[in-house]
Amino acid sequence: MCDHCVMETVKEKMLGRRDFFKGLALSGAAAAVVATPASAGTVSVSAAKHLDLTHELHEGFPTYFGKPGISRKSVFNFKDNGFNLLEFTINEHTGTHLDAPLHFSADGQSVAEIPIGNLFCPLAVIDIREKAAGNADAQVTPDDLKAYISANGPIPDGACVAMNSGWDKFVGGDKFRNADDKGVMHFPGFHVEATKMLVEETKSVGMAVDSLSLDHGISKDFATHYAWLPTNRWGLECIANLDAMPAKGATLIVGAPKMRGGTGGPSRVMALA
Amino acid sequence: MCDHCVMETVKEKMLGRRDFFKGLALSGAAAAVVATPASAGTVSVSAAKHLDLTHELHEGFPTYFGKPGISRKSVFNFKDNGFNLLEFTINEHTGTHLDAPLHFSADGQSVAEIPIGNLFCPLAVIDIREKAAGNADAQVTPDDLKAYISANGPIPDGACVAMNSGWDKFVGGDKFRNADDKGVMHFPGFHVEATKMLVEETKSVGMAVDSLSLDHGISKDFATHYAWLPTNRWGLECIANLDAMPAKGATLIVGAPKMRGGTGGPSRVMALA
Repeated sequence: MCDHCVMETVKEKMLGRRDFFKGLALSGAAAAVVATPASAGTVSVSAAKHLDLTHELHEGFPTYFGKPGISRKSVFNFKDNGFNLLEFTINEHTGTHLDAPLHFSADGQSVAEIPIGNLFCPLAVIDIREKAAGNADAQVTPDDLKAYISANGPIPDGACVAMNSGWDKFVGGDKFRNADDKGVMHFPGFHVEATKMLVEETKSVGMAVDSLSLDHGISKDFATHYAWLPTNRWGLECIANLDAMPAKGATLIVGAPKMRGGTGGPSRVMALA
Repeated sequence: MCDHCVMETVKEKMLGRRDFFKGLALSGAAAAVVATPASAGTVSVSAAKHLDLTHELHEGFPTYFGKPGISRKSVFNFKDNGFNLLEFTINEHTGTHLDAPLHFSADGQSVAEIPIGNLFCPLAVIDIREKAAGNADAQVTPDDLKAYISANGPIPDGACVAMNSGWDKFVGGDKFRNADDKGVMHFPGFHVEATKMLVEETKSVGMAVDSLSLDHGISKDFATHYAWLPTNRWGLECIANLDAMPAKGATLIVGAPKMRGGTGGPSRVMALA
């Protein structure tokens, strides 16, 4: 069969697959997809656009508890030693970071025990930017998930379900924690009922938020953390750049630290779309 | 055109592409590749096998300077606080980690400044296990690179060129540092002339070793570090599991930390093959 014939088939298969096609168009490269239903969301690494969903980490990065999460010390410097080397002291849950099941369980998976396959996920992006713009305490609800599914189809097995509340643009200022005069924070998160729906009705493995916590800021009981992490699913907090992601079809890649016994940690979160 | 027709074409295109086909066979999934020369090494995320090239990091992980590279402190624990949270103090160059250009230059790219596209690389694996088994001071030489190229074709643009010396299997004991009675270490690395050849004759962006340093252990001058990193290329040290990788055709994904001003850091190194 001639190459022209193959490429024509590829074009046929890609018609209507806006999210995937977008990545290819942006990369200016061509790619092929599998001609079976299993191909939904298939991304060719060499053809896809590489995206960085990670905030730069530094001493001033806002934290849940309001205290600096990292500090650094220069051990060697180029001028005096011929090379640069730093030592960092890091609270595991600082910056764009992963919550391992062990973070909210007695004996769940540590960050090093999460199966490698669970760090490569079809990404489902739930867009609540409009309601979050009018209500800092907004949550992803079961109705938001139902609306996503009716528009985009089922949540794929092994997916990471991400909340795009538009909060990542506030990371440089006080609005990211958005604490009131009583110190109560106000930012969006996942409603515990939506969390239970994902646990009971999907085979998703991860949850991501563009704010400081899986639970919205005013939560007093970490209800979403307790409903999600003990099921050996992981969470990502302070994810960046979801505005650049399609609602479906992208692949999330979580460069989580492989620290023995770690409860999570700053991660390099990337995507192929 | 019928799906059968497409799949037949896919099979045709994959014939002889042992490395890529291996990944697909292992994953038990099907995939398609672009019918152009540019498709060499193309990997479909959903069809590829996910591999972890990262050693687990812990207080006892061997280090270049021989002192522990990390320590931990429990800040909150599940029994008393209802959740677990640790604080780590980490020497940037511990475990499976990245050397950013800034590590051996006055003003090269910090780990946060490496372009995201340079963290997704075609992986070229140079196998020197046989000579390293007989000589702990062995190096990847220009002849090793020429032999690789004659057998596998040119080093792809944007590649990471990795040394598989078989040293990763010693990570649990003293043989990893392999210090003699004078404290001089003996482990394999890249010869400075091979390094210059990669800089002058290829568009590779990264170099990886399964030992403690880009330079072999007996080096007194970090010649390879100085020839490589100041060109705004990065290095990976203590990479694991290269035995499971094809000589060519895999995609390396480097989950490097995004620490402002960082000279490198423990990274989650993964591959699709």
